[in-house]
Amino acid sequence: MSMEKVVIVGGVAAGPKAACRVRRLMPDAEVTMIDQDSLISYGGCGIPYYVGGDVADEKELRSTSFHMLRDERFFTEAKGVTTLTSTRAVAIDRRHQVVEVEDMASGERRDIPYDKLLLATGSRAVVLPIAGADAAGVFTVSDLHKAIAIKEMIARGEVSRAVVIGGGAIGIEMAEALTDLWGVETALLEFQNQLLPRVVDWPFATILENQLREHSVAVYLNEGAEEIEVADGRAVAVRTSRRTLPADLVIMAAGIRPRSRLAAEAGLLVSPAGGILVNERMQTSDPRIFAAGDCVEIAHLVSGRRFVAPFGSMANKEGRVAADNIAGIPSRFAGGVGSFIVKAFDLALGCAGLSLASALQEGFDADASLSSPADRAHFYPGHGILCLQLVFDRRSRRVLGIQGTGPVNDALAGRIDAAAVAISAGATIDSFGNIEMAYSPPFSSAIDPLNAAAYIADNLCAGLMRQITVAEFLAWGAEPASRPDWLVVDVRHPNESQPFAERFGPSLWYPLPYDQIRRRHEELPVGKTLIIVCNAGSRSFEVQVALDQFGRRDNLVLPGGMYVIHRLAPAWLAGL
Amino acid sequence: MSMEKVVIVGGVAAGPKAACRVRRLMPDAEVTMIDQDSLISYGGCGIPYYVGGDVADEKELRSTSFHMLRDERFFTEAKGVTTLTSTRAVAIDRRHQVVEVEDMASGERRDIPYDKLLLATGSRAVVLPIAGADAAGVFTVSDLHKAIAIKEMIARGEVSRAVVIGGGAIGIEMAEALTDLWGVETALLEFQNQLLPRVVDWPFATILENQLREHSVAVYLNEGAEEIEVADGRAVAVRTSRRTLPADLVIMAAGIRPRSRLAAEAGLLVSPAGGILVNERMQTSDPRIFAAGDCVEIAHLVSGRRFVAPFGSMANKEGRVAADNIAGIPSRFAGGVGSFIVKAFDLALGCAGLSLASALQEGFDADASLSSPADRAHFYPGHGILCLQLVFDRRSRRVLGIQGTGPVNDALAGRIDAAAVAISAGATIDSFGNIEMAYSPPFSSAIDPLNAAAYIADNLCAGLMRQITVAEFLAWGAEPASRPDWLVVDVRHPNESQPFAERFGPSLWYPLPYDQIRRRHEELPVGKTLIIVCNAGSRSFEVQVALDQFGRRDNLVLPGGMYVIHRLAPAWLAGL
Repeated sequence: MSMEKVVIVGGVAAGPKAACRVRRLMPDAEVTMIDQDSLISYGGCGIPYYVGGDVADEKELRSTSFHMLRDERFFTEAKGVTTLTSTRAVAIDRRHQVVEVEDMASGERRDIPYDKLLLATGSRAVVLPIAGADAAGVFTVSDLHKAIAIKEMIARGEVSRAVVIGGGAIGIEMAEALTDLWGVETALLEFQNQLLPRVVDWPFATILENQLREHSVAVYLNEGAEEIEVADGRAVAVRTSRRTLPADLVIMAAGIRPRSRLAAEAGLLVSPAGGILVNERMQTSDPRIFAAGDCVEIAHLVSGRRFVAPFGSMANKEGRVAADNIAGIPSRFAGGVGSFIVKAFDLALGCAGLSLASALQEGFDADASLSSPADRAHFYPGHGILCLQLVFDRRSRRVLGIQGTGPVNDALAGRIDAAAVAISAGATIDSFGNIEMAYSPPFSSAIDPLNAAAYIADNLCAGLMRQITVAEFLAWGAEPASRPDWLVVDVRHPNESQPFAERFGPSLWYPLPYDQIRRRHEELPVGKTLIIVCNAGSRSFEVQVALDQFGRRDNLVLPGGMYVIHRLAPAWLAGL
Repeated sequence: MSMEKVVIVGGVAAGPKAACRVRRLMPDAEVTMIDQDSLISYGGCGIPYYVGGDVADEKELRSTSFHMLRDERFFTEAKGVTTLTSTRAVAIDRRHQVVEVEDMASGERRDIPYDKLLLATGSRAVVLPIAGADAAGVFTVSDLHKAIAIKEMIARGEVSRAVVIGGGAIGIEMAEALTDLWGVETALLEFQNQLLPRVVDWPFATILENQLREHSVAVYLNEGAEEIEVADGRAVAVRTSRRTLPADLVIMAAGIRPRSRLAAEAGLLVSPAGGILVNERMQTSDPRIFAAGDCVEIAHLVSGRRFVAPFGSMANKEGRVAADNIAGIPSRFAGGVGSFIVKAFDLALGCAGLSLASALQEGFDADASLSSPADRAHFYPGHGILCLQLVFDRRSRRVLGIQGTGPVNDALAGRIDAAAVAISAGATIDSFGNIEMAYSPPFSSAIDPLNAAAYIADNLCAGLMRQITVAEFLAWGAEPASRPDWLVVDVRHPNESQPFAERFGPSLWYPLPYDQIRRRHEELPVGKTLIIVCNAGSRSFEVQVALDQFGRRDNLVLPGGMYVIHRLAPAWLAGL
């Protein structure tokens, strides 16, 4: 048998992972990896930290943990993978099993034969079709060259004002990078009505938005960039429907699209959204051609739909599975639940599975539990507060998703990850309530936030807990007269409830400490819907059950309590 | 129907959780909780932090997160649970469905009738049957009174030297508490040959032991306490087979036993180890009597055996399930995997599932992957190094357990928890490799430590990776002449390998940088077994595969690399 030829197109994440794995599994194979870029195998997710200065040198993003630069020479010499950079794949001839490539320096073209081919072509950043998009000073965050150019521009002192277009993860991280280290006056535009649209629900997007504002990022929602104003070939401002924002630097972070032209032109099946279609072996519609990374669509393990999961972590897993199958090992990649985490200044925000809005859209009988637990034993010094929301299906009791915010430590990530494993396995509320979280006061609570979130979901399903939404509460707060039937019953300590009672008056905000409800509940006026409020929501729930048992079922809980309201509407609470 | 009577014996963790849940689910029930102690519902796991000063006041351990003291009055008034403290359950008359109780102040006895009874009697600390065990200054860490007494004794300046008997979690935490804040000269005795016996394997116990020694705790293994020497009624020293350790304070942390006398005397089924036997509904052999918490045995979801899981976290879950079933809701508690985490000074140590030693003992075809990955992107500032071991069955490829150490942040806990969910669900190496961990450089790596551990396990099963044990390596290090057939090949950067090559000489320790192996492998002498060494083990694995492909299969990897050796044998490496 002649030497088997494996060709890999793409050298950033899935490509190098697969190339090295194939090299190890198939000692006799000839493994060739090509990439149109001169820089390969870099941690693209690290770009904001390079721009922001946490990572001093771009080389760190493309070095191993043992400080060896992952360049063409490294892959060829250390990994035994013939690596061709600045080499573009032009076309795939499936009948003759060759990839036509072009040396981008010389323009010379040639055919590279393959027995197995892997497409790891990644994604491209969306460039908005607006005037000025091609001006100097306008960048997508799509590769390391652009990152270097952005950082150099800032370092030369040419950037005092920046506009970031797009409120997704990259936009948020870039806004932090510009503001935090460089003190650039930064505005963030999102044309939809919240940050991280379709990723998290409104309350979590709003907590994030507040965090950005508190750190001097100007956030404009419902405002798309309509034009980039240009002078002398350089961007000078971004115009929206409502304002013109001066800008020396414009970051276009308006999403990504799978790079699938090569696949589509070769007649491989590609989804309407542009993702290459693969099976669980990462095999395309041509069994000799595999695909992995940002260019493919994978199965969403909750919705069952296909989606693009543009994360280096997924690309590595998919690349390894593709490599196994190229080598004849029947590994499988079942899909994902879209696990996500982002740091924004002093806030961590993460999620996995479906948001409530997405779950409803998918036709689930979805509801959500909102809570604000401590991230470790409440008596342990230095604990923080998480805000968590569990999304579940009332009919099947399946947990559909989780999202949360917390301090910048690993407490939130740990909960998201444990939840993601459970959600991927189809966990119900009931099994979620029994998830075993290692307990010791410096790390966790006897009743872990994940378990507590499931308990709330259980109580909601059972009708034992009934709630308003935080949006309804804030609407009331803005205009109490809009709900004349409501009376807020604040069951916190008088030190906490009194300022509110004074501000609103006792006919709107009634202080009644939690431990006095059993003997004082008859004080509460009849004919009103009692909105029970505490800090985290748990006392409110207990009071609700007690009132129910006293025959006063005209009551609703504010889920997550004032901890959530503080994060959602700090301005509303100012001075209290 | 007359009012249903629910009686709960035990008021620390499972008891209060169940009592409050029953109260909420059964509005018409009469709920009575009794406890022989005057102090109830406290976070027992917080005791070391109270003694050590992180928690200033014992009241914090028995207060809610909203600073309300959980005493008899709180449960009666706020929770609606009739609570009797200092009241001992003497006997259960199952035929007449009454619990005989004794008021411990008056000695008066009476019967409390029940329709449903929950035993949440907890555990008792083992008091070793040695002379002096009852002397003043000798304490178990079994309740809050003892914790208060210990702290008062220290605060009065009466303790300059202490001996802790027992190298389990409580012993370790108490040793830290005494040493860290109070500067007490502390010795820790463990009669078995490692700390945390049966919980983690030797390497992790040794990393922990080194951490304790570095913080001035004198650790003595294979040494039980044989006598406590007493003068004027007070403990003054602890005598072992090898030495006498002066001590003003002796902490006996020699394990716990379920409190099941009441159950056994009532004819309920109790295991030979003393755990009350329950089904998945937390129902004992009498369907009207339930049990939960430290007093029961639960199913181990990996071994299938029953075990006692004395954690407040498990007690709460079991208590909630018991309450549901008392109220007619068919909730189930399937069991656990023994998730565990402990803080020791600057080290976090955790595990879930079976250790390698336990897995082998259970008859599994067990092996383990050892690794030392970064706890987040290696280019992100402030990352730490974890040591992780995945235990798996070679035949079924099932993951049986995980254990690890790391810095005191939540990175290790997050991995243990995500792994525990997967292990509980019966994950194989293959699904483990695809666990979706939310990725962003401040929180994680593109290839998460959990995924990487599974990849190593996969490579071990495939025979692609072959390894020595760290114990074998250390034995060689202590006496290189014992393995004259070995040549260590250090594939790290010359800056790192050179000092070793100089110390051992190139005939024992051969430096050959990783990226030069393909062109220099012929330098390596034949007739030797090559022991390939790097920092984390991953380069070594790659070199192994490359050597194999060059026909040099006489090579073995040091798993986890020098990062693990540094933590295991800091003294051996001193000066390098």
